[in-house]
Amino acid sequence: MRKGILYGVGVGPGDPELITFKAVRTIQSCPVVAAPMTSGGGTLALDIVRQAVDLADKRIVRLSFSMSRDAAERDRGYERAAAELCELLGSGSDVALLNLGDPSIYATFQRVAGLVRAAGFETHAVPGVPSFCAVAARLDADLTPSEREPLHIVPARAAGLSDALAMPGTKVVMKAGAHLGELKRDLAEAGVYERVSLVADCGMPGELVVRNLDEAPDKGSYFTTLVIRP
Amino acid sequence: MRKGILYGVGVGPGDPELITFKAVRTIQSCPVVAAPMTSGGGTLALDIVRQAVDLADKRIVRLSFSMSRDAAERDRGYERAAAELCELLGSGSDVALLNLGDPSIYATFQRVAGLVRAAGFETHAVPGVPSFCAVAARLDADLTPSEREPLHIVPARAAGLSDALAMPGTKVVMKAGAHLGELKRDLAEAGVYERVSLVADCGMPGELVVRNLDEAPDKGSYFTTLVIRP
Repeated sequence: MRKGILYGVGVGPGDPELITFKAVRTIQSCPVVAAPMTSGGGTLALDIVRQAVDLADKRIVRLSFSMSRDAAERDRGYERAAAELCELLGSGSDVALLNLGDPSIYATFQRVAGLVRAAGFETHAVPGVPSFCAVAARLDADLTPSEREPLHIVPARAAGLSDALAMPGTKVVMKAGAHLGELKRDLAEAGVYERVSLVADCGMPGELVVRNLDEAPDKGSYFTTLVIRP
Repeated sequence: MRKGILYGVGVGPGDPELITFKAVRTIQSCPVVAAPMTSGGGTLALDIVRQAVDLADKRIVRLSFSMSRDAAERDRGYERAAAELCELLGSGSDVALLNLGDPSIYATFQRVAGLVRAAGFETHAVPGVPSFCAVAARLDADLTPSEREPLHIVPARAAGLSDALAMPGTKVVMKAGAHLGELKRDLAEAGVYERVSLVADCGMPGELVVRNLDEAPDKGSYFTTLVIRP
């Protein structure tokens, strides 16, 4: 029997119009659509896709991942999800695993794709618009004002954030919501406080745009992105 | 009279299926479509868009930019283009300025948007899929294998490339074609030669995928992107 293929489909940052034609065609071609479930039981990627694609005939699989700070616990979550996906693929179904933003950048898809390939199945990524590109558009920001300076994409929980802040070029700090209070202190210490703008839940209901860090809360949405100008 | 609005439309990395619905709708809503002309007289962004949108009723404006190494000469090119765009906007036409990839990352749009805003016109960016996301998908690469390490987007002509190579996390080196011979030596010296893959002209005719740098030419296409694993 033909084995199914796992597609990691980037569905963009939140606005359903920022989905690509390839993402829609790929989802339409798969009988099974899988999506990560948030701790609150929501499935944001699925909610976005429903606005662009008719999912009435699809089998929907909600995957639950651990958000634990313990890496081993998170790994067990990925292994459980990969096992569930492999069972579907083994029965011959192609599966579209929805991924917010792009599937190569801090992506759920990448956390299971290696395990799925190791089990003998084919995987393909369909690129998407990363959230920080939508954030830059929302802020009218040029992420690369110099042709010769780099752009750094840094998770808020990065080891060595202060080293990253000292590098030349623009810095984008992702998933900053839970750490905003602490980050504000770090950014003030690094002398870049005045150069920061932020967008939370870009293109989604409740979007928040802050151009002066004094006006930012100490704890924000999970999808809070900072842009630090060079 | 109503002033026109300048839209910087990210049209993605080359595959016309990787255009978003918002990009298509924005282009359709504008009577004028502007696109940068390459030194050879081609208009790659326009060629990509033609495969996804009917441009028959549009006024097409080809903008010529200087590729000079002299920054002042390049600036004069941006000023000429901005003046041409402002004239169109002043006559009340909305203009869609096509931009390969995303309009916030090493983008033609950003080079003229500030000048156009300074002349009193409104600009909006429509995000797109950056080329490095398509390159990562083509290579089955995870650009962020650790949740706690950054991702660095570095132009091949960056001042201090060796500093960038020494940073933790994945490095993406863009527009590397003209400098490949030199880069190969730098990458060998930095001890990362074996960790490099590259894609040239991703998703376009003549696409080249190289997983062993020994097989890379010393001079490649302008759209050559390296991925350096951590």
